[in-house]
Amino acid sequence: MSAANPKRVHITDTTLRDAHQSLIATRMRTEDMIPLARKMDDVGFFSLEAWGGATFDSCIRFLNDDPWERLRDLKAELSRTPIQMLLRGQNLVGYRHYPDDVVERFVDAAYKNGVDIFRVFDALNDIRNMEKAFSSVKAAGAHIQGTISYTTSPVHTTAKFVEMAEELSARGCDSICIKDMAGLIMPDATRDLISGIKERIDLPVCLHSHSTSGIAPMSYQAAIEAGVDILDTAMSPFALGTSQPPTESVVAALAGTPQDTGIDLHALRRVRDLCLRLREKYGGLLDPISERVDSDVLVYQLPGGMISNLVSQLKEQDALNRLEEVLEEIPRVRANLGYPPLVTPTSQIVGTQAVLNVLMGGDRYSNVTKEVKDYVRGLYGRSPAPITDEIRHLIIGDEEVITVRPADLLEPAYQKMREQAEKEGLVRKEEDVLTYILYPAIAPSFLKGERKPELIPERRASAPASPADIPSFMEVEVDGEIFSVRIVSVE
Amino acid sequence: MSAANPKRVHITDTTLRDAHQSLIATRMRTEDMIPLARKMDDVGFFSLEAWGGATFDSCIRFLNDDPWERLRDLKAELSRTPIQMLLRGQNLVGYRHYPDDVVERFVDAAYKNGVDIFRVFDALNDIRNMEKAFSSVKAAGAHIQGTISYTTSPVHTTAKFVEMAEELSARGCDSICIKDMAGLIMPDATRDLISGIKERIDLPVCLHSHSTSGIAPMSYQAAIEAGVDILDTAMSPFALGTSQPPTESVVAALAGTPQDTGIDLHALRRVRDLCLRLREKYGGLLDPISERVDSDVLVYQLPGGMISNLVSQLKEQDALNRLEEVLEEIPRVRANLGYPPLVTPTSQIVGTQAVLNVLMGGDRYSNVTKEVKDYVRGLYGRSPAPITDEIRHLIIGDEEVITVRPADLLEPAYQKMREQAEKEGLVRKEEDVLTYILYPAIAPSFLKGERKPELIPERRASAPASPADIPSFMEVEVDGEIFSVRIVSVE
Ligand SMILES: [Co+2]
Ligand SMILES: [Co+2]
Repeated sequence: MSAANPKRVHITDTTLRDAHQSLIATRMRTEDMIPLARKMDDVGFFSLEAWGGATFDSCIRFLNDDPWERLRDLKAELSRTPIQMLLRGQNLVGYRHYPDDVVERFVDAAYKNGVDIFRVFDALNDIRNMEKAFSSVKAAGAHIQGTISYTTSPVHTTAKFVEMAEELSARGCDSICIKDMAGLIMPDATRDLISGIKERIDLPVCLHSHSTSGIAPMSYQAAIEAGVDILDTAMSPFALGTSQPPTESVVAALAGTPQDTGIDLHALRRVRDLCLRLREKYGGLLDPISERVDSDVLVYQLPGGMISNLVSQLKEQDALNRLEEVLEEIPRVRANLGYPPLVTPTSQIVGTQAVLNVLMGGDRYSNVTKEVKDYVRGLYGRSPAPITDEIRHLIIGDEEVITVRPADLLEPAYQKMREQAEKEGLVRKEEDVLTYILYPAIAPSFLKGERKPELIPERRASAPASPADIPSFMEVEVDGEIFSVRIVSVE
Repeated sequence: MSAANPKRVHITDTTLRDAHQSLIATRMRTEDMIPLARKMDDVGFFSLEAWGGATFDSCIRFLNDDPWERLRDLKAELSRTPIQMLLRGQNLVGYRHYPDDVVERFVDAAYKNGVDIFRVFDALNDIRNMEKAFSSVKAAGAHIQGTISYTTSPVHTTAKFVEMAEELSARGCDSICIKDMAGLIMPDATRDLISGIKERIDLPVCLHSHSTSGIAPMSYQAAIEAGVDILDTAMSPFALGTSQPPTESVVAALAGTPQDTGIDLHALRRVRDLCLRLREKYGGLLDPISERVDSDVLVYQLPGGMISNLVSQLKEQDALNRLEEVLEEIPRVRANLGYPPLVTPTSQIVGTQAVLNVLMGGDRYSNVTKEVKDYVRGLYGRSPAPITDEIRHLIIGDEEVITVRPADLLEPAYQKMREQAEKEGLVRKEEDVLTYILYPAIAPSFLKGERKPELIPERRASAPASPADIPSFMEVEVDGEIFSVRIVSVE
């Protein structure tokens, strides 16, 4: 992207957002992020993904951290490195569509508190669900990274994705992200997609994948050869498994090549040392399974976590023996619904309906969830492929399907909610109104200071106490010089 | 390699040899290998690396498994899939050179008991140390895979490696393996090397790497694009970290492409399920550190394990504070010794000498180990680059350096050792003589049936820590930097 070195690959490090969301249930605390950000600021990253996604929810629900204060505190440390956030289009950092006035206010506040780059996506790739966010980011003068939610299906062709990239470019995006949330993208598809986009538009392209299936590092290499501009990686103690490929590895793999990231491995080592300590601190939240290659993703093309959810649902119904049938029903339901990408919330919508279809003994769609009905009504947006009249009729009968942008049906809400929050005595700063609108159930107790941070659980498999005869800290004097030695962990 | 599909990539699965050697200290037992081999035989692998390397030693030292019986039992299960072994050139499956007659007998016995493909390497890439093995494999009529031990240094250029591949081809090798035991090979180097070899010789090329530094999957992708014929992988429960990239991931990444491995993911899933159970069984041997990305490999270009060995050595000398100096001394010692690849035994030879040089306060080589002297005398083979007269003189004074093949100095030993073993009543089958020659210290008790298999340790995490327990692994922080420490021996 730099004119002097057109081939340089840039790195967005996700340790402060996606990596801990993927591996330790989004539980990294602000107090741990601050010293880490301080060390990371000198490295030379393109950006740090450090806000948005599930972090907002986790801050107020579990950590008693104010997400807006976190953002400001991070900004204070990051004088050289842009802060990037993940914005769920019209869903912002929540799980439903918000009215346009809320989107405007949220983006403006995020920008003013420190977000430089907004990665905006929609689970259905319905650009109408992203357009208000785009115009708001543009109005603030920040960087819009338009996002393609990657999935595989008969209608998700390279050509279609390239078309979407062109559309994102036409909508004023400053860069394009290929977001492969399930770790499904294959090296060949990566090369075709990146080459295809680069042939048609002149914007930096970023690849974001997860190592869930063990393939992401291979696809990153294919991306590099296809001329990718930015790669999303995570520091090695929070990398691989359901997280991103390791920052250190990608940086080292490119060192001295025309794609050299310009990042010094020694600087990364200092960041890594701090990350190792945080990994110890949060070790109790780390599920070893999330660090393992999940080849179910490969066999069933289902994102990690979805199969375990299905197993839980079936267990509750005493029907675990129906799992194979459900796994076969899922692709049918997904086809019936026009091939939505399997990501929150569509993965739950499809999975639950597949379970119902199997349990109803083949009388498919005789029992339909409210979410599937809303989906068919068009309230989530436009399905990637059209839904047949037959299926639509089976699910919502003669009810009408909306054709407008879903948020067009929503009344402005900001002022009304502001007044309500003020009446409840919750507003100490303007951003508190947004917190209230996004999480009305938990925001009141949070804003009143009534919530307590949850404790970090002990390591699942209880770690042995360090043996009594091994000191955990010592100072050693050698030739008059004192060195401090601390045992960080003992296995 | 098949004429019908010239681009197909073939898979050698290493689960039965390198993967468990790398992750669980070579402790997989024959009884667990047999059902696994049975399932693997249907998959369609190019070969299974299942014998040789450290497995022979481990069989008799720790498991009370007869390595020859293991080989025969595996052969009985593998009617479709070739068995591959790792042969350390003139060192066979031991740690020193053996006379030619022993090499001949060993290879012949290995072939007769079931080995189809012999991967032959030498730590110094001295082909003279491989030639007796080559001629013995050729005499048996088996497949010779000639091996390049990959390393980085000013003299280890792509051109030199390509030259070595040509030499291996001229010596009658049937395929070429690039063996990157430390996980150092970068994607660019991979592409250059494979393209370079394929331009000059018409033999199948295999890439063998380790994920220690997190780069191997990227280099595998580069290898695929450069036209590699065979990739070494391990089933996902025994993959990544210090082991190979995952079999399932590589197979899935290539499925449906011109390089399709022809392997069915569903067949792999059944193998994986069994591997998962074995991972549980051997969990107590699994060091979490060996599963993590080791970026020290990247910063210092040292193989995993080497730094922890140095830390142990320095600690014993109360000189942990000299670690940085030692890390700086290592490249100098390596240069002085003509850039040996850092692999057993040369990594120990170089590391120990670097420690001595630092502890002698700059009076380098005033204290020299016997191994370094033997190395400089030429007894390990020819160093990759010549050793200067100055350094040679410093280390062995006016002593002569041998220029012949080291094994030329060894008298035939088979008959004499056979008689000795018979006299001791150790020989029930001819192969027992080889076991005796290779491990004279432990073979007698093993062959007399006096050894007991060691118990599989409890999972480290759940083992009750008695105060007497000395942890074998810890992470220590020295002046802000974290090092992994492996305690090798305690006095
Ligand atoms: Co993600
Ligand atoms: Co290996």
